[in-house]
Amino acid sequence: MRGWYEDANIGDEWRIGAHAFTRDAIIEFAREYDPQRFHLDEEAAKHSMFGGLCASGWHVAAASMRALVDFRAAGFAEMAARGETPPPLGVSPGIANLRWPVTTRPGDVVDFFARVLDKRETKRPAWGIVGFRIWGINQNGKEAISYENRPFVARRGG
Amino acid sequence: MRGWYEDANIGDEWRIGAHAFTRDAIIEFAREYDPQRFHLDEEAAKHSMFGGLCASGWHVAAASMRALVDFRAAGFAEMAARGETPPPLGVSPGIANLRWPVTTRPGDVVDFFARVLDKRETKRPAWGIVGFRIWGINQNGKEAISYENRPFVARRGG
Repeated sequence: MRGWYEDANIGDEWRIGAHAFTRDAIIEFAREYDPQRFHLDEEAAKHSMFGGLCASGWHVAAASMRALVDFRAAGFAEMAARGETPPPLGVSPGIANLRWPVTTRPGDVVDFFARVLDKRETKRPAWGIVGFRIWGINQNGKEAISYENRPFVARRGG
Repeated sequence: MRGWYEDANIGDEWRIGAHAFTRDAIIEFAREYDPQRFHLDEEAAKHSMFGGLCASGWHVAAASMRALVDFRAAGFAEMAARGETPPPLGVSPGIANLRWPVTTRPGDVVDFFARVLDKRETKRPAWGIVGFRIWGINQNGKEAISYENRPFVARRGG
C-alpha cells in the first residue's frame, strides 16, 4: 500500500481517506463518461430503477483511486521525512471482483479502506505481489464499492 | 447489450465505438481522480516506469462505459424507430477480471468491443443474466483494457 513488500502483513488494514460525492461532480462525471439519465438528471432519475440520482460506478471507482493515491503520497512523504527511501511503484496486473453493493447518491461521503489479503514473492527478486481488498463504506454504514487489487510491490534490496 | 435476454446469442460480437485519448483529457481525469506524475506531467512521466505520459486505467474504463452507453442508446433508438419496445435496464452485480494489458497514451484511439460469453435465466421471470467480455484495442492492435460484465438483462414478457 505505502511501504515495501516486507512491510505488508496479512490482515493489515488502513482507512485510506474519504470522498464526498456532490450532485455537481456526479453529473459532471456522468456527462463525460456515463451519460445515463439516472446519473444525469434528478427528475428523470426519480422514474428510473434507482429512484433518484446516483453516481456512475466508475465514478466511485475513480474516487477510490484518488483516495489511494493521496494516502500513498502521504505515506511516502512520511518515509522521506524519516530519511527512508520510498519504494518504487509497481504496476497492477488488474482488478478482481469489482462490485457496487449499494448506489452512491449526492451528499454521500464514502470512507475507503484497504486490507492486505495475501502476499507472495515472484521470480523477479525486485518484486513481490501483494493482494489488497479495497472497499468503501458510506455514511450509513453500507458498502458502496469493493474490489481486489494485486499490484507488484518492490522488495527491499531487490 | 442492446436488446432483450432472448436476443443475446453466445458468441455475438459488436464493435461498440471508439474513444480518442487526448493529452488534455488524460491530465484532466488524472488531476481529479489519479494524480500520479506519469498521468499528470509529460516531463516527469519520462522518468517513470512508463517512460511517458499515460492515461489512468480508470480513465480507460470510464471511456469504455461511455462507448457502451452511446452504443446502447443508439440501439434503443433504432428499436423505438421500428416500433419495438426497448428493454428496461438491469443492474450489474459487478465486474470481473479488469485488466490493462498495455498503457494508453496521448493520441491513442481505442476501439471498444463486446462479446456474449454466457447467459442464464434467474429465478426471477423478468430477468436473465448475460455475461459479456468488453475489451478495447488501440490503433496499434494492442489490447488496452479487458473485463467481464454480467448484468441482469430483461426477458421478454417477464
